[in-house]
Amino acid sequence: MGPSARDGLRSVRRRAGRRVHVDKEFIQSLEKGLTVLRAFSRDTPSFTLAEMAKATGLSRAAARRVVLTLQSLGYVGTDGRQFFLLPKVLELGYAYLSASGLSTVAQPHLDALNVTLGEACSVGVLSDHDVIYVARAQGQRRMTTAMSIGTRLEATCTAVGRVLLAHLPDEELDAFLADAPFTPFTPHTVTSPDELRGLLAVVREQGWAVVDQELEIGFCTAAAPIRDAEDQVVGALNVGMHTARVPPEEVVDRVLPRLLDTAGAIGLKYRERRPA
Amino acid sequence: MGPSARDGLRSVRRRAGRRVHVDKEFIQSLEKGLTVLRAFSRDTPSFTLAEMAKATGLSRAAARRVVLTLQSLGYVGTDGRQFFLLPKVLELGYAYLSASGLSTVAQPHLDALNVTLGEACSVGVLSDHDVIYVARAQGQRRMTTAMSIGTRLEATCTAVGRVLLAHLPDEELDAFLADAPFTPFTPHTVTSPDELRGLLAVVREQGWAVVDQELEIGFCTAAAPIRDAEDQVVGALNVGMHTARVPPEEVVDRVLPRLLDTAGAIGLKYRERRPA
Repeated sequence: MGPSARDGLRSVRRRAGRRVHVDKEFIQSLEKGLTVLRAFSRDTPSFTLAEMAKATGLSRAAARRVVLTLQSLGYVGTDGRQFFLLPKVLELGYAYLSASGLSTVAQPHLDALNVTLGEACSVGVLSDHDVIYVARAQGQRRMTTAMSIGTRLEATCTAVGRVLLAHLPDEELDAFLADAPFTPFTPHTVTSPDELRGLLAVVREQGWAVVDQELEIGFCTAAAPIRDAEDQVVGALNVGMHTARVPPEEVVDRVLPRLLDTAGAIGLKYRERRPA
Repeated sequence: MGPSARDGLRSVRRRAGRRVHVDKEFIQSLEKGLTVLRAFSRDTPSFTLAEMAKATGLSRAAARRVVLTLQSLGYVGTDGRQFFLLPKVLELGYAYLSASGLSTVAQPHLDALNVTLGEACSVGVLSDHDVIYVARAQGQRRMTTAMSIGTRLEATCTAVGRVLLAHLPDEELDAFLADAPFTPFTPHTVTSPDELRGLLAVVREQGWAVVDQELEIGFCTAAAPIRDAEDQVVGALNVGMHTARVPPEEVVDRVLPRLLDTAGAIGLKYRERRPA
């Protein structure tokens, strides 16, 4: 088993561990640097130093030192006034994809499932209260959300999240639920921890999750667990569908069997891969 | 035009700028943190503190502080002895993909080209002396290299690199060639700056590059430029082929026309996208 085989679980354990962290070892300037890198997004792809200070809560002087350091290391570029990310930042995330092996193993299976069903599909893992997508196939459908690897979505209202949460040990689920945000994205979003617990018991029992319009009206997702050699859930495979295109009975009759087959096939390949 | 539209050029400009950087603003602990994150790979997916110190050249105490900080921030996990990356690191790299827009725009075109040609294809940009791949479609072919987004390859001996270098302004190409590594990967690898200059002039003139077995025996790639609204080359699209499967005449007759069409279509979509 690879070292990142149980990231979902470890992620939650690590969150618990963070609270008892001894602060004197903590390097604040490293935290500031990573905060600056994460401030860039599709909506704010570039910043002046003043905007960066405002967006990150850093002092102008601190933001300036961080940005100049990132620039001199080749992660950030500038036209003289605006600063923006350079492709070298991809190397920071790439090591995870490369080390975990799950993305590489899953991709051809995602591509095949995408062709079979004509719907976008992804593999996600838990990170804090979110699902992070580590592999994705969305084919050529025009109206598909422009999601990519590295996208985060709140775990409680996504099918991938429900599958991953359903397989957490009790005390880890308790810790998760104690401070989960439960953002009410739509009128259908489940925002009660107790109601969610009941749903998770069903997901664990039946081996899959369907989440209907809890993240976005008109959008429904189904997910199934991917298991390693020790039968631990290392990720979940999902298919996202527009409700106008895929009626509920079709999700169960046509989508679920293929989703479960593919999740099984990815698990098999993941277990077969040569040790990293 | 988006802020990362000319990353290739800016990357080279930034390299030149780095040399005159004033060191007193430089935050060494931020550099150390990013060095530790980059030390993880497929071959070394986990480290003890001693191994991490050795791999990065940091003192054991410095490595310890960096790793504990990264752990408390949720980027690194541990089983008590070994440290490994957690999926949160993906957020650092994927802000770039999201902000640039090139990956999102290119992906459906890559998927379609992959289906049409039955060969893996990618979009790459320049970063220092390397090409970094920002989008990829490799379909279900078994023998395809397990490359993913974020993979680096030396620019001088790849078709994507040749296309991107062919469109650099003269002084930037001079700066690039002055310290390019020219690693001789195979007996066919071009390792003379002057010979490469001649090849780049041909690439610029004809509008595409083919590189035959210079990176790996039995492997050939073709690439074409992707242009923004100002006709600047923002990336290059490539198709990778095994020479045993695709004879040279087929590269020209069957692959090139589709490669050029797809690169043109990606450029069109990139120019049409809503401003970030």
